[in-house]
This record gives sequence, C-alpha cells and structure tokens, in this order.
Amino acid sequence: MNASEFRRRGKEMVDYVADYLEGIEGRQVFPDVDPGYLRPLIPTTAPQEPETFEAIIEDVEKIIMPGAASPACTELETVMMDWLGKMLQLPEAFLAGEAGEGGGVIQGTASEATLVALLAARTKVTRRLQAASPELTQAAIMEKLVAYASDQAHSSVEKAGLIGGVRLKAIPSDGKFAMRASALQEALERDKAAGLIPFFVVATLGTTSCCSFDNLLEVGPICHKEGLWLHVDAAYAGSAFICPEFRHLLNGVEFADSFNFNPHKWLLVNFDCSAMWVKRTDLTGAFRLDPVYLRHSHQDSGLITDYRHWQLPLGRRFRSLKMWFVFRMYGVKGLQAYIRKHVQLSHAFEALVRQDTRFEICAEVILGLVCFRLKGSNKLNEALLESINSAKKIHLVPCSLRDRFVLRFAICSRTVELAHVQLAWEHIQEMAATVLRAQGEEKAEIKN
Amino acid sequence: MNASEFRRRGKEMVDYVADYLEGIEGRQVFPDVDPGYLRPLIPTTAPQEPETFEAIIEDVEKIIMPGAASPACTELETVMMDWLGKMLQLPEAFLAGEAGEGGGVIQGTASEATLVALLAARTKVTRRLQAASPELTQAAIMEKLVAYASDQAHSSVEKAGLIGGVRLKAIPSDGKFAMRASALQEALERDKAAGLIPFFVVATLGTTSCCSFDNLLEVGPICHKEGLWLHVDAAYAGSAFICPEFRHLLNGVEFADSFNFNPHKWLLVNFDCSAMWVKRTDLTGAFRLDPVYLRHSHQDSGLITDYRHWQLPLGRRFRSLKMWFVFRMYGVKGLQAYIRKHVQLSHAFEALVRQDTRFEICAEVILGLVCFRLKGSNKLNEALLESINSAKKIHLVPCSLRDRFVLRFAICSRTVELAHVQLAWEHIQEMAATVLRAQGEEKAEIKN
Repeated sequence: MNASEFRRRGKEMVDYVADYLEGIEGRQVFPDVDPGYLRPLIPTTAPQEPETFEAIIEDVEKIIMPGAASPACTELETVMMDWLGKMLQLPEAFLAGEAGEGGGVIQGTASEATLVALLAARTKVTRRLQAASPELTQAAIMEKLVAYASDQAHSSVEKAGLIGGVRLKAIPSDGKFAMRASALQEALERDKAAGLIPFFVVATLGTTSCCSFDNLLEVGPICHKEGLWLHVDAAYAGSAFICPEFRHLLNGVEFADSFNFNPHKWLLVNFDCSAMWVKRTDLTGAFRLDPVYLRHSHQDSGLITDYRHWQLPLGRRFRSLKMWFVFRMYGVKGLQAYIRKHVQLSHAFEALVRQDTRFEICAEVILGLVCFRLKGSNKLNEALLESINSAKKIHLVPCSLRDRFVLRFAICSRTVELAHVQLAWEHIQEMAATVLRAQGEEKAEIKN
Repeated sequence: MNASEFRRRGKEMVDYVADYLEGIEGRQVFPDVDPGYLRPLIPTTAPQEPETFEAIIEDVEKIIMPGAASPACTELETVMMDWLGKMLQLPEAFLAGEAGEGGGVIQGTASEATLVALLAARTKVTRRLQAASPELTQAAIMEKLVAYASDQAHSSVEKAGLIGGVRLKAIPSDGKFAMRASALQEALERDKAAGLIPFFVVATLGTTSCCSFDNLLEVGPICHKEGLWLHVDAAYAGSAFICPEFRHLLNGVEFADSFNFNPHKWLLVNFDCSAMWVKRTDLTGAFRLDPVYLRHSHQDSGLITDYRHWQLPLGRRFRSLKMWFVFRMYGVKGLQAYIRKHVQLSHAFEALVRQDTRFEICAEVILGLVCFRLKGSNKLNEALLESINSAKKIHLVPCSLRDRFVLRFAICSRTVELAHVQLAWEHIQEMAATVLRAQGEEKAEIKN
C-alpha cells in the first residue's frame, strides 16, 4: 500500500471506528455465535493472489464483528496460525486443523516463545521423573536439568534459562557457525555421565550475528532419541521459509516440539507478532490455573483454545487481525516476492563487497544479511563502523564472530531498492577510504 | 474526545503518518540528540487542566521525532512513569527524578509485573544467601524459598510462582477479605521453623473478586523487618489513587520494593499498559545480559535506562505515547473526575441493591465494583447470572467468596452514565423476579 492509498484507507478506518463508537448502544454486549463459528467462514489457506481492501473490510463486518472480541480474537488467531503454518509447510502435528485444540499461538517476542517452551519442557520432564520417583522434589530435579543451545544462539535463550532457574550450556558451533550432531552428542554424554539431566535444546535457524543455521537434520534425531524437548528458534529467518526455494532450511522441523519465528521481523506484520507452534502436547500443563472469574461454559468442551494457558500474561491483544490483513493484501505470491527481493538485494551487496579486495565476506550469505569487514584488525573495523554510524546516512549493527569484529549489512526496509544498496555501498567505500588513510598516516607516524 | 472530534483528529493522524512515509528518505537514520535530551523539554508533572490536541501533536514533532525511536521511546517512558508516580504521590524512592537510572517501567500486564518482581526477589535472596554460604546451589536455595499472597490474590501470582519454580503459600484473609499481620506472621514463623526461607510477599490492593484491600500498614513493616521483597499489586484499584480521597488506600507503599497497577484498566489508556515501579535496587541484576549486537556507547554511563533488563521480552513498543496523550488531553483533574464518577455510580448501584430486600451486598463497596447476590442458595444465584448473561443486555462476571457464588457489577465503560446503571438494575430485578418465581414453582411442585 502506497502513501496515497494509506491516506484513503486510513481515513475510512477512522470513520469505521467513529461509527462504531456512535452506534455502540445499539449493539449486543455478548455475541450470539457458538465456539467454532469462525473457521467455516474463512478459507483454510491464505490466498495466493492479493485481495482488495474492500473485500477484507467487508469480512471484518461480516465475520469478526458478530464474534466480538471473544471468541473472534481466539478463533481468528488459530486460523491465521494455520494459514501461516501451511505457507511454511509445517508438519500436520503443528496445525490445529479441524480439531478444537492445538496449533499455533501469537506471542509478543521470540524471547517469550523460548521461555514458554523451556517452561513447558521443564514441567514435562519434572512430571515424568516424579511419576517414576515420587520422592523427588522439583528443586532436586531442577538442580540437575540442563538446556543446550549453540554458542551462536540469541541472548534471550540464556535469559530464558536464568528465568527458568536451569543451567544452559553453549554447544560450540562449527566452522560455519552451526550446531552439529557431534558437539551436541558429546555434551550430552558428558553431562549424563556427571549425573545431570539434559531436557531441552534450542536450535537456531538464522542466528542473529551472522544468519547461520544449526543442522536440524542432525540435531533433531538426537533430541528425538534422547527424549529432549527441541525448540526451533527461527525468529528472523522463518519468514523466508514461505518460498519453496528456502524451505529446505527448515527440514528437520518434524523432530521439533515447538517452533517459532517473528512475522514482525520480515513478513510485513507490525511489531509485535511472534508466531509459535507447539506439537499437540502438554504445553498448557505448565500454566493451567482456573479461578472462578476466568471459568466459562466451554471450559472442558474441547471446542475452544484457552490461549491464556499458552503464554505468560493473561490479557491478550487481537494481533491476528494484522496477519489477516497482511496475508490477504499481499497474497502468498506478494509475500514471496517481497522475501525474494530482499535476498536478491543482499546478494547484490555481497557481490559489491567481493569486488573490492580491501574487504572480505565473513559468513555465507543465505538470506538478507551480509557480514563483512575490512581485511585487517578489529580496531580498524571498529573505526569504520564508528565513522559510518557517525555520518548517520546508514546505520549498521556489528557482531563478534570468533573474536573478529564484523559489520552487518541487513536488508530489512519495506521500501528498499537496489539504488539504496548501491548508495550505501559507495558510502561505506568512502568511509573505508578515510579510515584506511588515517591508519596509513598513523603507521607512517609510528615509523618516523 | 467524542466521535466527531475523533473523526477529525484520527484523519489528521493518518495524514501525519502518510506524510512521514512520503518524506522518509529525507530523514536521518539516527538521531542527533544525546541521552537525557528529552527530560528538560517536558514538564516534570502532568498538567492539571486538559491541553489541546494541537499542542500535543506539535510536541510530537518538536520533541519526539528528533529523538526517533531511541532514545525517545525510553526517555518518554521514564518521564511518563514519573508523572504518573507523582499523581499517585509515590515515595521519592520509586521515581527516576533527575538521575538517569531507575523509576518506572511499562510492562504488558500485571502478570508480567508480578513475575518480574518475583524473579528479581529470587535473584536477590539467592545472591545474599550464596554470599554468606558459597557452597549453596541455586537449586538448594530455591527448594526452600516461599512466596506469600492472600487467598484472594489473583491467579497470576500463583502462575508467577509456578514459572519461577518456587512455592507460593496462600495466607487466609480476614472477614473483610484482607491479608492481615497476624495470619502472615503465623505463616512466616511456621515456615521458618520448618527450615524454609520466606522471600517474597504480594499484597493486593483491590482484589479481583471483591476489590478488597490487604492491610499494607500491617504487612509492610513485617516484610521490612523480615527482609522480604514486598510487591504491591493494585492492578485495578491503582488508578483511583490519583484522587486525594482514595490515596489513603495506598498508605504503606513506602514499605514496598515494587508496585504495579494497570492504567489500561481504569485510567483511559488503551490495553496494554501496566505501570510498574521498583525502588532503586538490583532489579536489573536478574536479567542482565550484554551480547555485542546489543551493546551501545552509553552502556555503562549511568545516563540511560536499559529497559530490556527490566522485563521478559527484548523488543518494546512505544507505549508511553499513549500515556502522554491521555494525561495531557484529560489533565489530572479530568482523570480524577472520571474516577470519581465511576465510584459515584457504583455507590448509586449499591444503594439500589440495598433498597431491595431480596438482595444483599457481599463486600464493602470502595471503588467501582459492587458484589451482590440474591439472599438464598448458590444455585439460585447461578440461575440469576445465567438468565442475565443469556439475555445479553448486560454482562456480569461472577466470583466465589468463601464458597458463596456472588455476582459482580463493575463500572468500567468510558461512556457509562447513571441512566445505564438504572436500566441495568431494572433489568436485573426483572431477571431476579423470573428466577425467584421459577424457584417458587419448583418448591411448590416438590411439596405437591
């Protein structure tokens, strides 16, 4: 949607809200619909081609408003998570399908998804061990629990470990910054021999630092064999899996117990919207509490999904509306085109870097992130970053890869074009020339 | 703001956003401002009288836009939390004031605030005990930790205990559904004698079921003496404390380590916006992690507040803008008038109930909630609720008070007037008459 259509549609929405406010006394305080009313009114998959804004707004009035906040908020979320799961070709076990329970849930951020998965895994292993040895206390078990993630995993995984009160061990990644079978297996054997209890593994697809991919086809079977909860964090990269040519990066997800990525990162849905799927399992057991003021007549019917048992907060926003609008306005093809364009642009940037022998590429370019640096010291590259970010024409966030200070060029704006990438590269080259000249002069001074 | 002004202002905002999108290439990617730029540009307290929408929008362009998302998002939040803290007459120790660190933070929900407080308390007590006895493991400590809350506390407190992996004990409330010194002290003594380690107390001001208030002036000094972290949860009632005549309900907050209420519940700020204050203490110690990609040049300057260490997620929304708009458009006086009107209306409803001898009031009416029931069995009141909610003219949520099924009449709509309350009461009376008649016929049948 361009700015001029945004003006028109935005104003229509303002009128829609004002009309609602003016007519609110004429509306019923509680909907007439029965649980499950929404699914049959909506297609089972996202449209391939874009739809018109009018068509969507018409459906808001026809499908959402009669279901008010509840159950429409819950039911649209379940259906949208199925749409998205199908776009990604997730295994059936992650989808809600026709059944009432299960499927996906919208969390706020990947941090929360990882924490929820860790807590569910902790509950599951604790119950299993206590069923076998009723004398074991929760604390006695927690003392021995170990979670694992690659040394490239996001800091939120460590945070989840801190909050959950369990130790987290970093598995050394390989030369491509990926977690592999051998390193994980080695850690598991060592810890089990020491009397510890491995219970949870986070595999990252598209790490924050350099967008590397843990080897899910190796890690998955180990988790399966050892009975460990496998959570797959694809916060950034997940959006790309809607393109058939990138779907292979998700192979092995069939071994996972939970999977998460953030449509708010790269799928045009505004922050926050973190999509999490859990295989039909006892996720909800970790949080289930039912005071009278939260009970309802469909409590144990199996007809509805009580998302409050799926998350940390109790209250929820109607975030699936954002997905519904975006998926329909772009269509699957439009979203795929958007991802492809970004990946092409990052490869275009990569090609520019490779043409300049003063620079090097520091990690394989797979999606929209290019890790690069000047050949030379960390100090030199820190100076380059400083000069780029001080000029404020573009902004780069660095990372550290095996103690090397690395610059990260991320394609992530909705309106980015090749011309922007070229301008940015020319600007980086200019800054590099200045930094290299200063370094040369410094060296010359030292010699003199 | 009425619907017709909303139409006008809403459309102006749409144009503002569209103009921004169209002019985005002319803007700098990174702001020129230094940390701490915002506070001097904004008054130190909320205005008493309403301001115009134009004045606020002008300030958005002048004060917020030059600070972009960062640091404006963080700094406005700190200042707004100070504004709100001062409206509530919170003790100085909860405010950020002129110093760079500390003060308040916006969480999503009270559930998250309680969890964050519990985790911070857990970290603090663990460090203290490990400093004294380095051989103690975290698990050995956690096994003995005990948190406390009244038996009227919200289910989210129990959820926080489950997530934090510590046991939570319910303190029996008194005849007014309040936690008192004697019951808490008794539990503490018993648990300490059993070798357990009390560490955390949640006091509730305005319980969910019946809006009762724990006795903070009794509970506070005990927590202080025993070195327990006291968290005060006033999720609903907190908004009322901006009125001097209700401020006494908050007396004793000076003993608290953290305090929380939800402006999204009763202060006209849209969901979600849960305001949490923490005394300058080691809250952030519980979550502090600093990977390279999150480091910044003001990291250890003391000039800025890194809210990511104050919460569960990493990403944040710019929720303080909602507070800024609401506080200025209503002014403190407008907000006070709003609260007072609701409290008056609940007393008006209470008076109507008391005039009808078939009904009884079940808990003292202090703010906007009236707990009432038909004199008679739970079954009778369940039937009444069912008939009311089936008619769908009004909607009531029940609760259980000492095993009595109770109906809750909550004043909570922005546009509620006395006429609505009167209509609702007439409707309830009609429903009651029907239910009582049915019960009478049933009894007659049984006799026959």
